[in-house]
Amino acid sequence: MIRLNASDPGFGHAFNELVNARREAEPQVARDVRMIIEAVRQDGDNAVQAFTDKFDGHDLDASGWRIEQAECEAALDGLEPGLRAALELARDRIAAYHEKQCPADSDDTDDAGVRLGARWRAVDSAGIYVPGGRAAYPSSVLMNAVPAKVAGVRRLVMVTPTPKGEANPLVLAAARIAGVDEIWRIGGAQAIAAIAYGTERIDAVDVVTGPGNAWVAEAKRQVYGVVGIDMVAGPSEIVVVADAKNDPDWIAADLLSQSEHDPTSQSILFTDDAAFADAVSAAIDLQIGTLATKDVARASWDANGAIVLVPDLAAACPLVNRLAPEHLELAIDDPDQMFPLIHHAGSVFLGRHTPEAVGDYVAGPNHVLPTGRRARFASGLSVLDFMKRTSFLALDGEALAAIGPAAVALAEAEGLPAHAKSVALRLARAG
Amino acid sequence: MIRLNASDPGFGHAFNELVNARREAEPQVARDVRMIIEAVRQDGDNAVQAFTDKFDGHDLDASGWRIEQAECEAALDGLEPGLRAALELARDRIAAYHEKQCPADSDDTDDAGVRLGARWRAVDSAGIYVPGGRAAYPSSVLMNAVPAKVAGVRRLVMVTPTPKGEANPLVLAAARIAGVDEIWRIGGAQAIAAIAYGTERIDAVDVVTGPGNAWVAEAKRQVYGVVGIDMVAGPSEIVVVADAKNDPDWIAADLLSQSEHDPTSQSILFTDDAAFADAVSAAIDLQIGTLATKDVARASWDANGAIVLVPDLAAACPLVNRLAPEHLELAIDDPDQMFPLIHHAGSVFLGRHTPEAVGDYVAGPNHVLPTGRRARFASGLSVLDFMKRTSFLALDGEALAAIGPAAVALAEAEGLPAHAKSVALRLARAG
Repeated sequence: MIRLNASDPGFGHAFNELVNARREAEPQVARDVRMIIEAVRQDGDNAVQAFTDKFDGHDLDASGWRIEQAECEAALDGLEPGLRAALELARDRIAAYHEKQCPADSDDTDDAGVRLGARWRAVDSAGIYVPGGRAAYPSSVLMNAVPAKVAGVRRLVMVTPTPKGEANPLVLAAARIAGVDEIWRIGGAQAIAAIAYGTERIDAVDVVTGPGNAWVAEAKRQVYGVVGIDMVAGPSEIVVVADAKNDPDWIAADLLSQSEHDPTSQSILFTDDAAFADAVSAAIDLQIGTLATKDVARASWDANGAIVLVPDLAAACPLVNRLAPEHLELAIDDPDQMFPLIHHAGSVFLGRHTPEAVGDYVAGPNHVLPTGRRARFASGLSVLDFMKRTSFLALDGEALAAIGPAAVALAEAEGLPAHAKSVALRLARAG
Repeated sequence: MIRLNASDPGFGHAFNELVNARREAEPQVARDVRMIIEAVRQDGDNAVQAFTDKFDGHDLDASGWRIEQAECEAALDGLEPGLRAALELARDRIAAYHEKQCPADSDDTDDAGVRLGARWRAVDSAGIYVPGGRAAYPSSVLMNAVPAKVAGVRRLVMVTPTPKGEANPLVLAAARIAGVDEIWRIGGAQAIAAIAYGTERIDAVDVVTGPGNAWVAEAKRQVYGVVGIDMVAGPSEIVVVADAKNDPDWIAADLLSQSEHDPTSQSILFTDDAAFADAVSAAIDLQIGTLATKDVARASWDANGAIVLVPDLAAACPLVNRLAPEHLELAIDDPDQMFPLIHHAGSVFLGRHTPEAVGDYVAGPNHVLPTGRRARFASGLSVLDFMKRTSFLALDGEALAAIGPAAVALAEAEGLPAHAKSVALRLARAG
């Protein structure tokens, strides 16, 4: 953890380093991934089977390629009732939030008599990647699958690796609750290749979303353009802006909720009170020891944690904008006054009773958010990632007479005579 | 050009080949582009200058790095008045169409007392790539720049190569009309690298859009994630569905308006009338000879053109959906009856008086559209490409008491104790 003071002379340089620190590994996986994708394109199921055998340690012919709905149903039935209710509450709230994102079509005729519009439709099929093993999160199933279903995707495919053939029952239960249509017991770059290009058994999808390790992320990047993808994701991060009126324990827990994800995660506190900074730092050290995730949280906090002392909290805003964090808590009395000063953040949590974790699970907005300063230009996952827009136009002879001559002039200026002719021929008939 | 008949026994196979034909070169440019980007990241302006010298044949220190507003103003003043009026009409109509795309913010409080919302903001800066030389199109300047300005982008940068130092006055005039803020006389992968990563002279942007050759397209793909990009673009294409009541000359010109773009462009006619197919084919052969673009149009039509005879026009719809074309004309009496059957197309042109070219220039919808079957999942360029959404949440103690316990349950089930604790500590205080 580093402590910075915005009033120190060397602060500008030190903060630049914090902003530009590359926590994203650039592993030499691109070549391996290219090889895996090529193999799946060439050999289809055989390649998928071989890679699964090699990386996940089971033979798909023996363990089964697909996980059937009955198995998901059984996993759901086996859930402790409180957990099932929590998943269902999350599903309902996520659905309610995302329904409001559904875009409206347009169809208008303007003064020139030109009819113009836009029509939104869901993609036919989408595939969501769900990691297996330690980082198997039912909440991620809901956050990816529910928006797809709200968008109207008819065929929703899930791929998830099952190391040694073992599936995570919580993930299967979440898939059932979210309405996933088809589940394949595959993971890694081979799974991304299989659903992007299709194999003998697996039909290709149109869009691929979901978190994964460096191989999965690189595979998504490589198939981008063959299919749509949600985003290039990196390590998670949280920024908390907090005054001294907060309980240091609460803020410590908020910071640690990010640190415990991964050693590359980052948690940063901005405060205007040095004693509060000390108190949070001490609370973190105390809390870490109690966590089952203490090794990860400790590694992350030590390597990437930061506490930045600012002369006043408004001074934090331009610094936060440079970080463009995935998650931002404004733990102050009047967060609505500060929110307009925040230009770049994936998701903002307003006030003292809005811990980021409530957004991870049940509040409704998506927890798939832009990381690594990408909130400057990118947005969280939404129904729009599972839809596409078709623009349309309709002119009659009169409307074409109104705007067609300008098209002819521009086409001729651009040296495209057939463009000009396709309009001019119709204008001649009208005249 | 190939002719297919949907009633022939071998049609399924032949149409598959048409759908899957890869017109997109996969040139071995990835390594060159990687090298150029790396050089620009390392050596900044010096690398940009060296590549410009090598590829564009001029020394930026002598020719000038930037094109100033005065030069654009002069280009605009020098325009023939009709052409200026055409550009201004196009700008106004494109702006009017894109203003309707501006998304609404939301801010609601639900029954549980949870306040949830979404806030859209423009990115701070965007860069548009404008090709130089033969394919220097002022219409592309408008189609990229106007949506950025409608979105509210404050710093709109244009990069355009000027072979031997020569800029295209039409492009400069269009930049002035569209409100471009800053123009750099650079092109190729080095220009994409410069605006994505920044150099000593050039500040980095947040989003990069615009058409380009294979090097530019690959460079955009490689910087995707560092900045936002519009899409992976490929050769242009048009599909025309036409009955025998059309004038074959009109339809021939429409098909050729795509063929004349590039030898890799594709034009496909679906019709239910063999005699009409013959007439269009003959009209194309006649018209091609008259075009200044005849070499390109001939090469494209010969290699990639197709006429598909279908038993009735409704039978064309599923075939069109498999092609998911960039442009689709429905040159029939009642296009609104057929339009709902079209699931995948970038832009649809309804009726006999709506040639695709009118949409290229002045109608209003964007002409930057998904190619190569990407309309299955992608949309045309819009203001959304220049904006990002921040979700937000606000809970008080009561709202947290309502939904927090479910978050605690899920966090514990996922093995993330600090997540659970950040909620539970607040619940304990409330209780």
